[in-house]
Amino acid sequence: MFRINKLRLPLSNLSSFSSQSQKSRPSYCTMMNYTMAASSQAFNNRKLLFRQLFEKDSSTYTYLLADVAHPDKPALLIDPVDKTVDRDLSLVKELGLKLVYAINTHVHADHVTGTGLIKTKVPSVKSIIAKAGKSKADLHVEAGDQIHFGDLFLEVRATPGHTPGCVTYVTGDGPDQPQPRMAFTGDALLIRGCGRTDFQGGSAHQLYQSVHSQIFSLPKETFIYPAHDYRGFTVSTVGEEMQYNPRLTKDEETFKSIMENLNLPYPKMIDIAVPLNLVCGLQDLSVTPVDASSN
Amino acid sequence: MFRINKLRLPLSNLSSFSSQSQKSRPSYCTMMNYTMAASSQAFNNRKLLFRQLFEKDSSTYTYLLADVAHPDKPALLIDPVDKTVDRDLSLVKELGLKLVYAINTHVHADHVTGTGLIKTKVPSVKSIIAKAGKSKADLHVEAGDQIHFGDLFLEVRATPGHTPGCVTYVTGDGPDQPQPRMAFTGDALLIRGCGRTDFQGGSAHQLYQSVHSQIFSLPKETFIYPAHDYRGFTVSTVGEEMQYNPRLTKDEETFKSIMENLNLPYPKMIDIAVPLNLVCGLQDLSVTPVDASSN
Repeated sequence: MFRINKLRLPLSNLSSFSSQSQKSRPSYCTMMNYTMAASSQAFNNRKLLFRQLFEKDSSTYTYLLADVAHPDKPALLIDPVDKTVDRDLSLVKELGLKLVYAINTHVHADHVTGTGLIKTKVPSVKSIIAKAGKSKADLHVEAGDQIHFGDLFLEVRATPGHTPGCVTYVTGDGPDQPQPRMAFTGDALLIRGCGRTDFQGGSAHQLYQSVHSQIFSLPKETFIYPAHDYRGFTVSTVGEEMQYNPRLTKDEETFKSIMENLNLPYPKMIDIAVPLNLVCGLQDLSVTPVDASSN
Repeated sequence: MFRINKLRLPLSNLSSFSSQSQKSRPSYCTMMNYTMAASSQAFNNRKLLFRQLFEKDSSTYTYLLADVAHPDKPALLIDPVDKTVDRDLSLVKELGLKLVYAINTHVHADHVTGTGLIKTKVPSVKSIIAKAGKSKADLHVEAGDQIHFGDLFLEVRATPGHTPGCVTYVTGDGPDQPQPRMAFTGDALLIRGCGRTDFQGGSAHQLYQSVHSQIFSLPKETFIYPAHDYRGFTVSTVGEEMQYNPRLTKDEETFKSIMENLNLPYPKMIDIAVPLNLVCGLQDLSVTPVDASSN
């Protein structure tokens, strides 16, 4: 029920992991036998409970997803923030959910992750981050892995460029999974923007390739849920960003030129946030994490 | 296509206008002949495009709704803010929508409405507010009215208490309308809270009656979309607020006591915002508004 399927696809070969290539690789996927829901809807079906939550100081979105058709109502949080952990856990409790995973899209530089704090308050929760991020967590994922919660799952796509360990989590592909699909893009793709590439091992070339091969290859109606928005947008779609993203609609050379000339200030939280986020947001984790190299 | 159906229900008789009484009054309602959608979903059906937008300074949510199955893609904005009008109109344009209505839930005291500014930029847009708000607008609505956009509509429910003119807009009841229903509650019902009742003709008694008779009478799965949130919540449901709202789960006397002892500071924007909002947010409206008393 709560498991991660390993697909073992190379992180370096980004273009081979499009949604098309996914479909041609059924032997890698463990598809579960579901009772088909009458309709598979992203928000109001009988399975997925979805909540978008906002942390104002860093303009971070945290996402709560749960399979409420499953008896345990297993839930996960994507990109929780330390400051809002109490709010998030209170909501989880009120909704009668069982939080099983606290997941990061990458090692954030602008806020401290809530995963460590969540684990001290709910020790059964497992933290998840990409192996390529080289930070501590209970479970490390890589491209092609599936994170299951009840009868729903997230697929892991490698989208490096903002950092080498950035991943995008996409809701499952299938009639029993939410439709349209939902992509939690972290800082790889923002609404009408993207994450910066001038620190933490960022690469404009890599980001351009990631977004085009891993996100723009999804169906156009796929919802884009980023880790941040600074102008009050809450959601976009793949089709919208393919048409209107002011950076990623350009050719790669123009994109790289844009990214090289942003002249952004040094991130004010980076020297505090990154060291903490490399250890789940807490210097002294009460639960000993698995080392990144061991997975 | 773009019309308001008048149901002529008395504003004072709140309890007579529950969803139950609605159903027993078919002769008042002009139900259109729709081709039934394969499924009626709030977010991802073929009809409703929905976007929640946030204005950070006043923590205001603006909502964009459109019938994208209709050839004209008619759209409306609920509670637009003057500062974010350009953002909102840009999004409307990018999505290929035709903005027909700019609607307020009430005369806001904490921000200046964007309706006047929208009308100067898109003169064909009609502004809408409740008649009981006594502010200028092109169209004035009252309890039981329906605001149609394409084959979708909003139902108007009188929810006074924060101000005498507060209304809640609820998506239509019917298999051809979004399910679950969505209630845009303004400041009447906030997530785990409610609007204050100590100025602008507010009344704790009236607010308590409004929420219980007009909002808590909706199906429990109805989504609650308020005009504000200060803690990063984006949505709730009727069932959640009936169970967890720290004020409105109490009996009326306790509620009134809570509201009388909030000791909130004088609203910093009220002396600027209210006079402007009584004239759609602009001192000099280029489009002469209909006087409140004439509708």
